Amino acid sequence: MGAHTDSMTVKPVSNPVIALDVMGGDAGLPDVMAAAEIASERYPALRFRLHGPEPRIRAEFVRCPRLSGSAIVVHTDEVVLGTDKPSQALRRSRTSSMGMAIQCVKNGDAHAAVSAGNTGALMAMALFALRTMPGIDRPALAALLPTLKNDVAVLDLGANTECDAENLVQFAVMGAVFARTVLGLENPRVALLNIGVEELKGTDELRDAAALLRTAQLPMRFEGFVEGDKIGQGNVDVIVTDGFSGNIALKTVEGTAKLVTGLLANAFRSTWLTQLGYLLSRGALRALGAHLDPNAHNGAVFLGLNGLIVKSHGSANVRGIANAIGVAHDLIIGNVGERIATDLANFRAHRPDVPAAPAA
Amino acid sequence: MGAHTDSMTVKPVSNPVIALDVMGGDAGLPDVMAAAEIASERYPALRFRLHGPEPRIRAEFVRCPRLSGSAIVVHTDEVVLGTDKPSQALRRSRTSSMGMAIQCVKNGDAHAAVSAGNTGALMAMALFALRTMPGIDRPALAALLPTLKNDVAVLDLGANTECDAENLVQFAVMGAVFARTVLGLENPRVALLNIGVEELKGTDELRDAAALLRTAQLPMRFEGFVEGDKIGQGNVDVIVTDGFSGNIALKTVEGTAKLVTGLLANAFRSTWLTQLGYLLSRGALRALGAHLDPNAHNGAVFLGLNGLIVKSHGSANVRGIANAIGVAHDLIIGNVGERIATDLANFRAHRPDVPAAPAA
Repeated sequence: MGAHTDSMTVKPVSNPVIALDVMGGDAGLPDVMAAAEIASERYPALRFRLHGPEPRIRAEFVRCPRLSGSAIVVHTDEVVLGTDKPSQALRRSRTSSMGMAIQCVKNGDAHAAVSAGNTGALMAMALFALRTMPGIDRPALAALLPTLKNDVAVLDLGANTECDAENLVQFAVMGAVFARTVLGLENPRVALLNIGVEELKGTDELRDAAALLRTAQLPMRFEGFVEGDKIGQGNVDVIVTDGFSGNIALKTVEGTAKLVTGLLANAFRSTWLTQLGYLLSRGALRALGAHLDPNAHNGAVFLGLNGLIVKSHGSANVRGIANAIGVAHDLIIGNVGERIATDLANFRAHRPDVPAAPAA
Repeated sequence: MGAHTDSMTVKPVSNPVIALDVMGGDAGLPDVMAAAEIASERYPALRFRLHGPEPRIRAEFVRCPRLSGSAIVVHTDEVVLGTDKPSQALRRSRTSSMGMAIQCVKNGDAHAAVSAGNTGALMAMALFALRTMPGIDRPALAALLPTLKNDVAVLDLGANTECDAENLVQFAVMGAVFARTVLGLENPRVALLNIGVEELKGTDELRDAAALLRTAQLPMRFEGFVEGDKIGQGNVDVIVTDGFSGNIALKTVEGTAKLVTGLLANAFRSTWLTQLGYLLSRGALRALGAHLDPNAHNGAVFLGLNGLIVKSHGSANVRGIANAIGVAHDLIIGNVGERIATDLANFRAHRPDVPAAPAA
């Protein structure tokens, strides 16, 4: 270990730079730029490289005065479409707004790239351009979900359909760093998603990963297994799973929240009495809606690459995209890549089943 | 095929008999018997075999007049505990209330067994005693979940951690029969749970299962893949998945519903205005609660065994247990085992990749 320092092209982060794909997602260029304007207000030191059609970007600058003073425009008319397969997208790695944003991270011209475009394409291009960090076999997609208490970080949300025990352990290390950085926790509680909490439950991969994490010397508390009904409880800070189960769980949370709020809307519409009840309760119900709003939790990150790539949800609004940019900002400032490398090196140095690697 | 008729020990069902483990679950014997009393009122032809401590059962009969006239008591003091491992439970297959209820199904003394006890133990004992039906490699645990429209049947909910394509196809056949029987649908819409809807998404097992189901000649409409956020939409009637993802999804639905209703309760408590709003909306909100109440959907069934075994949720209340007994009743009346055998035989006769089996 220690070689990771070579692969971190961007170092001391006093003036964070984000490469922004202004063409991705449903929102469109004006909304992506409006989000960047909000982020510029929140983080005055933040600077942008805006990748997309220059005339349209320049035209939009009249509505984004702060952004216009803190952004470089990098022109391209090429866009990765939502329907593009990863293989098609890879052919436009150097010419599309998404691909060029990733290249900026690779070249050290930006500390992170943010895109609301095609997830599969972003993943494929990012992996191809940036490669995984030393000690990481596969990157993982991580994001925050709302709970009754604080948000919980969940990974992998769909980058890897199948994972072995080593992958899961690496995800745990990365997830703990993510939680320390984004949630500000010193010693996050980490658990593996499983179909029961007993040691013998689940797959071999989960049991082996649990055995490794139980003895790991890492800045986290390993809490063993949690079941799906605990995702919303907020009793752990990081939930680790393979990308298949993680994606199922993430979307099931989204779908169930929509189901309950949909039923709730129907319930309030049912009589004039309930409509009045709604009017009286409106403020609190809006706060509830805000707590569950995916835009409030927008910004998934591909962890484990030699560079930061943040995915904004395709259907996010201006506020949501601004939050995704905020996640990128926090991860840059928190120097997540270096923290992951350090924790991995510590984990490897102390794991019982592998000889310690020589110090760099 | 056709051999299945030999293994169905119980046939024409005009007088359904349910073997009831009165000792399982959190509710305790009085509640389980109160549930059976409710079921006796709903289904006058239904008869019971009550497995548990005879003196306590007889004492409870004063509160269960209908049940006392339609039940046989089979004494045992032995109970499978919630903490018992399947291997421990198997040793009490012939002496515990749960094991004896299953034996009744095996011997043809009951058409179905219902227990609210230890799921792993019930599964192990049922599989050991009843074995899988011809043509079924593994049984699956199926249950209904609420949606914005009609309920959706989901399987497997945790009987099998890993499944191959053949398992998934068999689950689809069984799930469609379950939906036809319990939801009263002639031609249920069946989908595979996946992390995307495109044909290339997910695991090999899912893609192979989809290929088989696309050409299958079965009384169902195969709708391809659905993602987790569609579970609550009610646009399909049966969702098929391996037991790991199914269990994660089921519990994530439960947990998220609790999260949202918990946040809702907090929202209503926040001010006197919202408390008044709650009072006005109370009726509709209770209806919403009832729609989502797990007790309203209680009664998971192990499909694919030579006999019907229904699992009542350990935390179900009297009404919930009565609903689980109702599921058992409907499955008996619907002759689910025979329907599954017929559909499997048809599927095999028409599948392109396997030579047709000779008719029995």
